[in-house]
Amino acid sequence: MRVIKVSSFLRAGSQFLDVMEELFSKSSLRSYFAEFVSTFIFVFAGLGSSISAGMSATPTAGTAGENCHTLAVAVAHAFALFAAVFASAHISGGHVNPAVTIGMVMGGHVRILSGVCFCLAQLLGSTAACILLMLLTAGQAIPTGRLAPHVTGMGGAATEFIGTFALVYTACAARDPRKGPHGIASPTAIGFVYGANFMLTGPFAGGFMNPARSFGPAAVTGDFRDHWVHWVGPIAGGGVAGLVYEIFMSQGSVNDRARDQADVV
Amino acid sequence: MRVIKVSSFLRAGSQFLDVMEELFSKSSLRSYFAEFVSTFIFVFAGLGSSISAGMSATPTAGTAGENCHTLAVAVAHAFALFAAVFASAHISGGHVNPAVTIGMVMGGHVRILSGVCFCLAQLLGSTAACILLMLLTAGQAIPTGRLAPHVTGMGGAATEFIGTFALVYTACAARDPRKGPHGIASPTAIGFVYGANFMLTGPFAGGFMNPARSFGPAAVTGDFRDHWVHWVGPIAGGGVAGLVYEIFMSQGSVNDRARDQADVV
Amino acid sequence: MRVIKVSSFLRAGSQFLDVMEELFSKSSLRSYFAEFVSTFIFVFAGLGSSISAGMSATPTAGTAGENCHTLAVAVAHAFALFAAVFASAHISGGHVNPAVTIGMVMGGHVRILSGVCFCLAQLLGSTAACILLMLLTAGQAIPTGRLAPHVTGMGGAATEFIGTFALVYTACAARDPRKGPHGIASPTAIGFVYGANFMLTGPFAGGFMNPARSFGPAAVTGDFRDHWVHWVGPIAGGGVAGLVYEIFMSQGSVNDRARDQADVV
Amino acid sequence: MRVIKVSSFLRAGSQFLDVMEELFSKSSLRSYFAEFVSTFIFVFAGLGSSISAGMSATPTAGTAGENCHTLAVAVAHAFALFAAVFASAHISGGHVNPAVTIGMVMGGHVRILSGVCFCLAQLLGSTAACILLMLLTAGQAIPTGRLAPHVTGMGGAATEFIGTFALVYTACAARDPRKGPHGIASPTAIGFVYGANFMLTGPFAGGFMNPARSFGPAAVTGDFRDHWVHWVGPIAGGGVAGLVYEIFMSQGSVNDRARDQADVV
Repeated sequence: MRVIKVSSFLRAGSQFLDVMEELFSKSSLRSYFAEFVSTFIFVFAGLGSSISAGMSATPTAGTAGENCHTLAVAVAHAFALFAAVFASAHISGGHVNPAVTIGMVMGGHVRILSGVCFCLAQLLGSTAACILLMLLTAGQAIPTGRLAPHVTGMGGAATEFIGTFALVYTACAARDPRKGPHGIASPTAIGFVYGANFMLTGPFAGGFMNPARSFGPAAVTGDFRDHWVHWVGPIAGGGVAGLVYEIFMSQGSVNDRARDQADVV
Repeated sequence: MRVIKVSSFLRAGSQFLDVMEELFSKSSLRSYFAEFVSTFIFVFAGLGSSISAGMSATPTAGTAGENCHTLAVAVAHAFALFAAVFASAHISGGHVNPAVTIGMVMGGHVRILSGVCFCLAQLLGSTAACILLMLLTAGQAIPTGRLAPHVTGMGGAATEFIGTFALVYTACAARDPRKGPHGIASPTAIGFVYGANFMLTGPFAGGFMNPARSFGPAAVTGDFRDHWVHWVGPIAGGGVAGLVYEIFMSQGSVNDRARDQADVV
Repeated sequence: MRVIKVSSFLRAGSQFLDVMEELFSKSSLRSYFAEFVSTFIFVFAGLGSSISAGMSATPTAGTAGENCHTLAVAVAHAFALFAAVFASAHISGGHVNPAVTIGMVMGGHVRILSGVCFCLAQLLGSTAACILLMLLTAGQAIPTGRLAPHVTGMGGAATEFIGTFALVYTACAARDPRKGPHGIASPTAIGFVYGANFMLTGPFAGGFMNPARSFGPAAVTGDFRDHWVHWVGPIAGGGVAGLVYEIFMSQGSVNDRARDQADVV
Repeated sequence: MRVIKVSSFLRAGSQFLDVMEELFSKSSLRSYFAEFVSTFIFVFAGLGSSISAGMSATPTAGTAGENCHTLAVAVAHAFALFAAVFASAHISGGHVNPAVTIGMVMGGHVRILSGVCFCLAQLLGSTAACILLMLLTAGQAIPTGRLAPHVTGMGGAATEFIGTFALVYTACAARDPRKGPHGIASPTAIGFVYGANFMLTGPFAGGFMNPARSFGPAAVTGDFRDHWVHWVGPIAGGGVAGLVYEIFMSQGSVNDRARDQADVV
């Protein structure tokens, strides 16, 4: 009996070491660093352009002057997200967003522990960008994702849910094997769908369909009001999108899935 | 005699069952659902950004303040259409528009009954997006596609006709076998031509070169004034574009056509 | 002697018939028609968005209100040109512009007589779009390419020259065999470089780096003031770009050139 | 002893001739000329659109009217950079920016002496574009890259550093062999990340993440105030990005590197 216990203990230990080795292999660490840099690039350009545009945290939807703000900031976010996804797509899969990582976990393409490391790298990258922006633009307010006055928390979370659903559903389509080799398609689709939804969710929910994008400004300003909205909405939306795509849209062949899992981590 | 009648009756029944089987095969149902989701994504971001921009239904063409509105909303529509076409191109062909479906039917690439199911899925997706937007933006008007005051019904329909002709002609080119493998080309071309024409048709005809995009807001608000314009123009324009491309531009080899029909449904 | 004369006469006649046959072969006629439709699509969306934006013919450079005009109209032109080039690239090479055709003639990729037919098709397409826009937007002025008050004819032509040089140089790069198979690259590059230069040349020279784009509005309004500027500048710029690219940038192997000439007409 | 000295002297001379031969080979000269033309195209459209937009050198961040300026000029720069990179990518690698060249030198993809020639060609191209713009827009001020009033030199250089880091990191990813054949990906990614960061750095540091873009206007106006900022920031950012990508992100196989060096010069 004791022999079996020891051997099963050894087996569990060996499995644990395998998981650790995979989690901190050179290629995995490279993925986390790529996510860190890409999220940094995205948040620095996106939040930085918001500051430059002097976009207040809660613009009143519908005023003429705010449209140029919204458009400029949405285009900056779309372009920056394109570049960030592009620069990490061949290394880490180009998530740049905890909601996308969660969608990939739900779709079975990324392991849970790897996903946690991805999310940590993204949150760190966003926070680093916010700290640098704070230092460089001393005197300018860091806009956080506050809700518009007439929007309830549930309403904001629902808007975030749908926007993130669209984003992660598109991201799942972009990595579908039927799409052929990954090239420019994935970053373009993700950047554009983000830009389009940003013009909608920005003025209403003040949200970013990306908990990392929301977390950085909140962390450096200490303003966590309504912050749960920007986690619950995107995580639920991203998870549902990953499930919906995997269940209804993917071909679901075992080979495909095996190849997928070989792709990332 | 009776034997022949029975056998021909049986043959007709068998053909009917074949059609039904194809119409509701797993791959067909997946196509309809993909069209539903993509149209939902397109209308949610497009109409949502219109609401955010506070764009009134009938902006007076030529006023300075309206240009930013038009540009912001046109870019949101273009980006969202890109993502919507991209996310369904490898599943359903990425129509996201009854006018495109009709163009494909006229060009011989999609069967009539499949086309009807595609259109129903698109109308449902648009309506679902409008209902959600109505709930989420309570208190904001849902802009429908009203004509500008000085535009007649025929003028609006003609503008819709030409805009949709350009859209569907480009969509036909995007699926031309000479274009090589379908990648990013099709959604980019369709998104961009849509955005360009939106800046024109938006302020004049208040139209969307897409009956599904027009139907949703009309359905949830009950405002069907001038609604025929947004069906007659796009359907005629899409159908003519499909015919023109098939007759004058395609290589027309039997092999090509056979391969085409295998593509979608 | 007489025998030789007759035979040389016969040979000349046979050559003439060969040229005619090539000029009016089914594939050539398809190319002209594709250029006609694409130029129609481009001018309808581009000029139409100018009308919608209420952009006056000679906006004073530097006023704040004009920037949104210029941006909106430039983006509409860029997106529409993308779609127009995309929709005809695999059929006629996607010129949509006499200046591009002239650049291709100078680079030795298109024969002179074919080039003339291309230009006629482009001018017809542009004029048809302008006539339709005139009818559909009754009461709205058709903006022609007038020079800004402080710009001389030579200055306008020089601005057109450089803008068109950039456009046609990029178009030559896009069809370079080293670029690999023609896909989305060519229309994107041409659309974007056009949009970028439009923001510059629009307010100054009132020009379009495209004689067909300038000719249509002039033809339907009868306003040919300064019209030579929009022919001399683009034709010279396009021709020089074609020569510069062919002489300095192309690999110049005989095989490449032979393959090129087989490409178009 | 003397024999050895002579032979080593001869060997050094032969190596020097080899380097010279490579530096001024036909293919190298073509690369320099391609960089010259592409930088000319980029600066002519980018600076030209700034002049057209009447953008003052130091817009006060946050005013509503400036957002349209910033957006229009950023989009013009992004589109023009796309075209400029696209038109030279297959000839010279499509740097169009001394900071990118320095990043490539640091990553080991371009030799130092070749890099110097690249930078000279870029500076000449930018200056030529500025001289022409000065002549064509007589009476319009040439905007140089002055810092906003509240920004220190170090702050400006740091902003330039981070913006250029993002740009060159993306450019390194675009030429990564894992990205597959170079097509549209590289110019799109570089154009978009440039546009996104331009909206941020433009109003603050008045900078361009590109010493060539900054040098031209300074050279023709003689206004070299704060000019060091636009050299130190981009060069440091580009160099660090090249090192970071090479050390942490590239696969680092000897074969890859050998192939890389064969690519350019």
